[in-house]
Amino acid sequence: MARVYNFGAGPSMLPLPVLEQAQRELLDYAGSGMSVMEISHRSALYEDINAKAQENIRTLLGIDDNWAVLFLGGGGSLQFSMIPMNFLTPGKVGAYADTGNFAHKAMLEAAKEGEVAVAYSSRESGYDRVPKTGEIQMPPQSAYLYITTNNTIFGTEYQEYPDTGRVPLIADCSSDILARPLPMEKFSLIYGGAQKNIGPAGVTVVIARRNFLRGRDENLPSMLNYETIMNKDSMYNTPPVFNVYIVKLVTEWILSRGGLESLQIANTRKSSIVYAAMDAHPDFYTGRARKDSRSIMNATFTLPSKELEAKFLAEAAEAGMVGLKGHRLIGGIRASMYNAMPQAGCERLAAFMEDFYQKNC
Amino acid sequence: MARVYNFGAGPSMLPLPVLEQAQRELLDYAGSGMSVMEISHRSALYEDINAKAQENIRTLLGIDDNWAVLFLGGGGSLQFSMIPMNFLTPGKVGAYADTGNFAHKAMLEAAKEGEVAVAYSSRESGYDRVPKTGEIQMPPQSAYLYITTNNTIFGTEYQEYPDTGRVPLIADCSSDILARPLPMEKFSLIYGGAQKNIGPAGVTVVIARRNFLRGRDENLPSMLNYETIMNKDSMYNTPPVFNVYIVKLVTEWILSRGGLESLQIANTRKSSIVYAAMDAHPDFYTGRARKDSRSIMNATFTLPSKELEAKFLAEAAEAGMVGLKGHRLIGGIRASMYNAMPQAGCERLAAFMEDFYQKNC
Repeated sequence: MARVYNFGAGPSMLPLPVLEQAQRELLDYAGSGMSVMEISHRSALYEDINAKAQENIRTLLGIDDNWAVLFLGGGGSLQFSMIPMNFLTPGKVGAYADTGNFAHKAMLEAAKEGEVAVAYSSRESGYDRVPKTGEIQMPPQSAYLYITTNNTIFGTEYQEYPDTGRVPLIADCSSDILARPLPMEKFSLIYGGAQKNIGPAGVTVVIARRNFLRGRDENLPSMLNYETIMNKDSMYNTPPVFNVYIVKLVTEWILSRGGLESLQIANTRKSSIVYAAMDAHPDFYTGRARKDSRSIMNATFTLPSKELEAKFLAEAAEAGMVGLKGHRLIGGIRASMYNAMPQAGCERLAAFMEDFYQKNC
Repeated sequence: MARVYNFGAGPSMLPLPVLEQAQRELLDYAGSGMSVMEISHRSALYEDINAKAQENIRTLLGIDDNWAVLFLGGGGSLQFSMIPMNFLTPGKVGAYADTGNFAHKAMLEAAKEGEVAVAYSSRESGYDRVPKTGEIQMPPQSAYLYITTNNTIFGTEYQEYPDTGRVPLIADCSSDILARPLPMEKFSLIYGGAQKNIGPAGVTVVIARRNFLRGRDENLPSMLNYETIMNKDSMYNTPPVFNVYIVKLVTEWILSRGGLESLQIANTRKSSIVYAAMDAHPDFYTGRARKDSRSIMNATFTLPSKELEAKFLAEAAEAGMVGLKGHRLIGGIRASMYNAMPQAGCERLAAFMEDFYQKNC
């Protein structure tokens, strides 16, 4: 079948040149006579993949070797527990900005490990916004402030990041990692599952100041101890080799596109095209997110009825656009426009939305 | 480059037909217009992969739906901690058969979570053997007995499995899972990283009685709670989609080869060819494992000097055989002959060994 525009929230589209390269070399990686799925993680071939993928990420984020770049299995959700297990020491409080379903889940998991505090919440208004400067209130004994930079289900995204002073700032960037520049000087640790912007599901990237990771409790399970993973350069155990290899290819592709500034321009333009189509008919396409909190990754909206939404999804699929169904928790429509979504996909969606409005308004 | 025989201990060879199918459909899975790396884990396409991979494994092991088949990220080493976190309740003791490096590591991780007991150990004799019937001594309050069915580094493998009565038997089968039939009636939980016999690195298969997984402590981290993963059919969070897809293809390939009885015959024949080459010159090729504990997966031996071993490895590589270097902990030579290693690979290795002996004895 012809390639479709996949607006799914993740796993989602990968750059076509990356898929083509992976296909070309799938049976013989770098002249080794082996698939990349077959090479040893202790081989020079994999050490090169591991090192280059890290280097690409450091280059893109403008960080040096004082930052560790780790590749972990287990999915982003495992970080919900690893973070408090590593950093929420007795007497301290984990401060959480509750801006969506996954921020909330992270807080609940942390509450199993220690004391947590709600530093901000938009839960009562349906997670329609993210905090502005000054709206976050942390307890003085905060071990860290935890934020979720982009909220996939509700389509909100931080427009500015809090200054936390001496309190480490930790961010779940799963849905906008490497989609735009990030002021890394504000952060101590960021992480993201790869499956939205930088690779296939099955690998989570953790980027953290080496100093922040040092001094962990030696009684932590080794596989959940960031310091162990750092000291072993993400090869404490067998890493997800193929998944990291794809991350290497995608980060090369991002570099070839001009880096994060270029992606931010492209991603902003792409989302603007879809938001303009929504805003042209605000009584028909009702946005979930407040305009000042809108995400450039996920646009979410509802139609006047569930029947119209079902019709919208069916006709969009016929027009080569899939994955537009909103998250099962809240329904509606969600258009995810990660790095690999071409502008032509957003243009087709916008044209479809206008046409659908004209026929069904 | 021409395809080589990869004797690496894992990740290792995958069946060529599996690699070819993955390559063919890498850009368009099942006519979806998407790569399998791009499809949603909530899609019917992935539900089918997840269900079929489970079904294949149940068919191969001869188990019914009273057994859960789970696909987890994080690597087999994460199970070292998950098992005691889930089952080593206060007042109980985790009993461990210490038959190798990974069995030992599993015991050390369990000791962080609760009380452990050494139920058997071959550590002092260089892990040259596995226990026979009656050699395992469990404390009466054992929460479980934990064994490692195949010890990759030392090349030993259980020839018979203990009867533990009411005490649940848990097995790390990472290096011989689905390589031969297993008397599942003896076990409560088995697991294995995929990267040796059934897939690429990045997914761990856990096979357990559903009753055994029920009643877990709700305060466990959700991602480390087997019951949560079971109740969500391995989709509590985004699973490693591509990795599970390859497991599905490999298990289909095993079924097409006639199942585990056939594989056992083939794997036994393959290893016999290599062991015969060793045993023809026992003063030159010194086996590490006692003959009655020999693994059909990993043959380990030393040569009279490190120089000869280096020469052996270099000349083997020139002859299209790679990955023969022993584990860094103990050195020497290790030939891993997992499911996907063709008999022709073992025949070439045996011929090479004879030739190398004649030239260097």
